Amino acid sequence: MENLQLPSPIEITEAQVRINPHIHKTPVLTSDALNKMLGIEIFFKCENFQKVGAFKIRGALNAVLAMTKDDLKYGIATHSSGNHAQAIALAAKMVGAKAYIVMPENCPKIKIAAVKGYGAEIILCEPTLKAREREVNKIVEKTNAEFIHPYNDYRVITGQATCAKELLNEQSDVDAIFAPVGGGGLISGTALSAQYFSKNTAVFGAEPEGAQDAFLSFKSGKIEPAPFIKTIADGLMATLGDKTFSIIQQYVKDIYTVSDEEIISAMRLLWERMKIVIEPSGAVSFAALFKNKEHFKGKKVGIILTGGNVDLGMMKEWF
Amino acid sequence: MENLQLPSPIEITEAQVRINPHIHKTPVLTSDALNKMLGIEIFFKCENFQKVGAFKIRGALNAVLAMTKDDLKYGIATHSSGNHAQAIALAAKMVGAKAYIVMPENCPKIKIAAVKGYGAEIILCEPTLKAREREVNKIVEKTNAEFIHPYNDYRVITGQATCAKELLNEQSDVDAIFAPVGGGGLISGTALSAQYFSKNTAVFGAEPEGAQDAFLSFKSGKIEPAPFIKTIADGLMATLGDKTFSIIQQYVKDIYTVSDEEIISAMRLLWERMKIVIEPSGAVSFAALFKNKEHFKGKKVGIILTGGNVDLGMMKEWF
Repeated sequence: MENLQLPSPIEITEAQVRINPHIHKTPVLTSDALNKMLGIEIFFKCENFQKVGAFKIRGALNAVLAMTKDDLKYGIATHSSGNHAQAIALAAKMVGAKAYIVMPENCPKIKIAAVKGYGAEIILCEPTLKAREREVNKIVEKTNAEFIHPYNDYRVITGQATCAKELLNEQSDVDAIFAPVGGGGLISGTALSAQYFSKNTAVFGAEPEGAQDAFLSFKSGKIEPAPFIKTIADGLMATLGDKTFSIIQQYVKDIYTVSDEEIISAMRLLWERMKIVIEPSGAVSFAALFKNKEHFKGKKVGIILTGGNVDLGMMKEWF
Repeated sequence: MENLQLPSPIEITEAQVRINPHIHKTPVLTSDALNKMLGIEIFFKCENFQKVGAFKIRGALNAVLAMTKDDLKYGIATHSSGNHAQAIALAAKMVGAKAYIVMPENCPKIKIAAVKGYGAEIILCEPTLKAREREVNKIVEKTNAEFIHPYNDYRVITGQATCAKELLNEQSDVDAIFAPVGGGGLISGTALSAQYFSKNTAVFGAEPEGAQDAFLSFKSGKIEPAPFIKTIADGLMATLGDKTFSIIQQYVKDIYTVSDEEIISAMRLLWERMKIVIEPSGAVSFAALFKNKEHFKGKKVGIILTGGNVDLGMMKEWF
């Protein structure tokens, strides 16, 4: 069943060695109050504390640091609704390369400002995947920049896999790991790391009801579009790619969906009990565990908390 | 100059051994963005992640765990505006003792609810120190419970000292440590740990302008009342005791004051950049460093972030 073209255990280990000197070793936090509330021993991998405030720096850095000097001179291009944009901008800055970032015009201002802060060139476009791809293709044609897809790229998937590997190094006996699903880069990397480094750990995906393409695709066995896109989790609106879907099909145990109300409740619990700032997309994995807690009673579960980039002004609407 | 009646290095080490199995080892976090913004290398000791959401569990547990079974049977009494109350309630619960907690009727509901949640008996009183002391004396007379003062008690000071000791174990080369001053339990413990375990580390206190008794007392050389009490930092309204003041006079380098606006700005920066939830009192030490950043350019500074117990509803007023 092993798929030879997939990122290998050695490649994930190499990625870890490559990026480790440049990223934060994020803590794994626990909360007695939440453990008691759910009847589950939970280990939160806090990627909201990661550089750029999200796990996305892992995949971006892994791709950029593996490029040659010759390739880097044309720059790097990508499209992203936010955290991958920051990640590529910072990774490019670290190696002294130019970054071209296509961003949807409706994405949070705090994210656009952060990308600008890293010195990247921003190209705003309509908030559709088609518009993003069209713009990025134009840039690549014009500049010869290297396109680094936000998730459907083995270099990126391999980088994201290092997050679960770190969690498993620290807490090797978790029965399950929950990770959110947007385009599938993190969940497929997580599934590979569990498969390679901790065979007894099952991996579960968590997706907003308002962007449930992965849930439907997982059930039907072929890539399906979401029937509608409407969710507070702005980082999880992307659609699976062929590479991520193939890994998800093989190695993810199940995918759960959660409503925006459930996401907000989970986010509030994390803020109040864990004392950490989580963005809506970052709370989706915990929301899914909370909703399905009966199936995990007495188990040890790892939760990847993916990002903490919020406009504090938005809190008035959420809480 | 060593004062023989003060808690000794050995007592602080013993306290650490005594309480360590029962508390969280809180992480020391850093932020490139904040380091760059201030021109200072900052190490944040995150006691907002501590049990009960604040460092106060250290002093409370140190006092309670050192009591004999015979003493414990009468219970434990204290007065507190919040975090010490939760700490004593939890410590008492851990050893199976009864806790009587006198709390001012205007303290945050979330803190009263948490104390109730640990099974303590709550006695509400007027929000003055006199009323608190009167109520707690009544209880001690009636029940024979052991009174554990929130700060002016060497057992408590010794417990709070373990926080800076942990920070210094992890980051031994800090030039300075900032801690907030309310009644002075944390700052005096911090000063003792620096004095004993890291002679080259200077300790600075941070106090709200609207509760500046420690600032004035430090300058005049005798315990002075605050001219007025009005601050968003509800955990720092207490007045120095003789034991804490004596240690502060000997071992604290200076005390800075900050306005409520400066506290709110600091809190917001910590939420947005560090992705952590800090209560107003918990952000005062960072507010003081931010205000005085010119004096610390190029230095390494430890900041004790003391607590994260906030009513999320309050954010609408703050931000």
